[in-house]
Amino acid sequence: MPHPDFPPGTVWLVGAGPGDPELLSRKAERLIREADILFHDALVGPAILDLARPGAILGSVGKRSGRHSKDQATIDRLIVDAALAGLKVVRLKGGDPGIFGRTGEELAACAAHGVPVRICPGITAASAAAAAAGAPLTLRGSARAITFLTAHTRAGQLPDQDWAAHVRLGGTLGIYMGRAAAPDVAAGLMAAGLAPETPVLVAVDISMPGERLLRGRLDALAFLVRTISDEDPTLLLIGEAVAPAQMPERTETAAGTACTPA
Amino acid sequence: MPHPDFPPGTVWLVGAGPGDPELLSRKAERLIREADILFHDALVGPAILDLARPGAILGSVGKRSGRHSKDQATIDRLIVDAALAGLKVVRLKGGDPGIFGRTGEELAACAAHGVPVRICPGITAASAAAAAAGAPLTLRGSARAITFLTAHTRAGQLPDQDWAAHVRLGGTLGIYMGRAAAPDVAAGLMAAGLAPETPVLVAVDISMPGERLLRGRLDALAFLVRTISDEDPTLLLIGEAVAPAQMPERTETAAGTACTPA
Repeated sequence: MPHPDFPPGTVWLVGAGPGDPELLSRKAERLIREADILFHDALVGPAILDLARPGAILGSVGKRSGRHSKDQATIDRLIVDAALAGLKVVRLKGGDPGIFGRTGEELAACAAHGVPVRICPGITAASAAAAAAGAPLTLRGSARAITFLTAHTRAGQLPDQDWAAHVRLGGTLGIYMGRAAAPDVAAGLMAAGLAPETPVLVAVDISMPGERLLRGRLDALAFLVRTISDEDPTLLLIGEAVAPAQMPERTETAAGTACTPA
Repeated sequence: MPHPDFPPGTVWLVGAGPGDPELLSRKAERLIREADILFHDALVGPAILDLARPGAILGSVGKRSGRHSKDQATIDRLIVDAALAGLKVVRLKGGDPGIFGRTGEELAACAAHGVPVRICPGITAASAAAAAAGAPLTLRGSARAITFLTAHTRAGQLPDQDWAAHVRLGGTLGIYMGRAAAPDVAAGLMAAGLAPETPVLVAVDISMPGERLLRGRLDALAFLVRTISDEDPTLLLIGEAVAPAQMPERTETAAGTACTPA
């Protein structure tokens, strides 16, 4: 019997997590299996989309860094129209819908048309990247805060930052879609007084078969990201919490330290 | 056939998510089902623990605000000893292990004894709270960052904060275990220049049967939390992203606005 929280004409904004189908929540899995139509980001892979029922309609509204296959207004209209047609709609987003997911726009579009909309949270990329590296995001006593930013904006670059304020908070910094912005991030933080030897972790294709974890110091960050292509989803984590000492296993490479989970 | 990532003598630090068993990841579910012994926080409820196999040993090492049933050194020793005895060990934590989860200490304890340890990420409380309220945590163009803090420290209170730096970042602020600290948080932020009418969302027992969502303005935050008991896990979200306008359904109450998800 279908769950009562997904009647026809409803939109669910669903967090697919970082990519590994095992990192979907049980609730996300249920909603994906129940949907009549799914609109998904490019970062949501085939192993997750295969959970949809036979006959369900799959629509890629994929966004990758620097390449938007559909603009946000089009996506808003697609999900609203599908719901108004009486379908059970899943809008499947990488990570958590609330964190840099354009969820505000989609909520507003549904509300404007009287379409019921709900959110299923997901595991955000920073949590998955730290887990893969065997590191926490916060440390009791030292890294007592964590801040997430995105460099994936309308203009395609990191908005102006108050780097001094970030340094004063003294916590861990996570920068989503951060590859292109990495040199500016490092320069900005060092100019604001963050130590050049601050540990950094660069996480690419987290939880997917091509996962890469690169480690180094803040003053080498611009160099570390050079091997990463523009299209690879890249998260930067900066701060003492991600120091290599936290890592159970690792192997040295030319570009800092790459690690393989145990 | 058991998955090769969980041989006997291994410790998995597993994120249980906010409480609802449906918000477990599929991977967390698998690890819980495979474990010989599970050490869990008080916030991890019976519906999740019931997934353990018959005969698995369940140990509560529960922490609730202001009441630690076991100290961290004891927990570290328990998980290490169980692994050294050849058991498959799950250390089950509310939310995501990397965010305010004392994961650094447990990783270090395992490493010191040569015990293989891995991390399974989870959905953090802030993601679940925003989802339950039908709100995002970030907004394109305005709330472009999110910072998480905890008031659940060794001293039982919020560490000294640079509130001016938080205000300068201009993003959303999430304060875990924030009930007791709420008056100081509001006073600190307003003294640093944050507008008294800034929206706040107080989320209690997120995703559980007793879930409550209270809304109001920053200058009413100290009042909003008065109905919440010391023992209830409480998250504060502060910023424009959680403005009531984002919410699909809501009902007015005496203490601001309480909402019921659609």
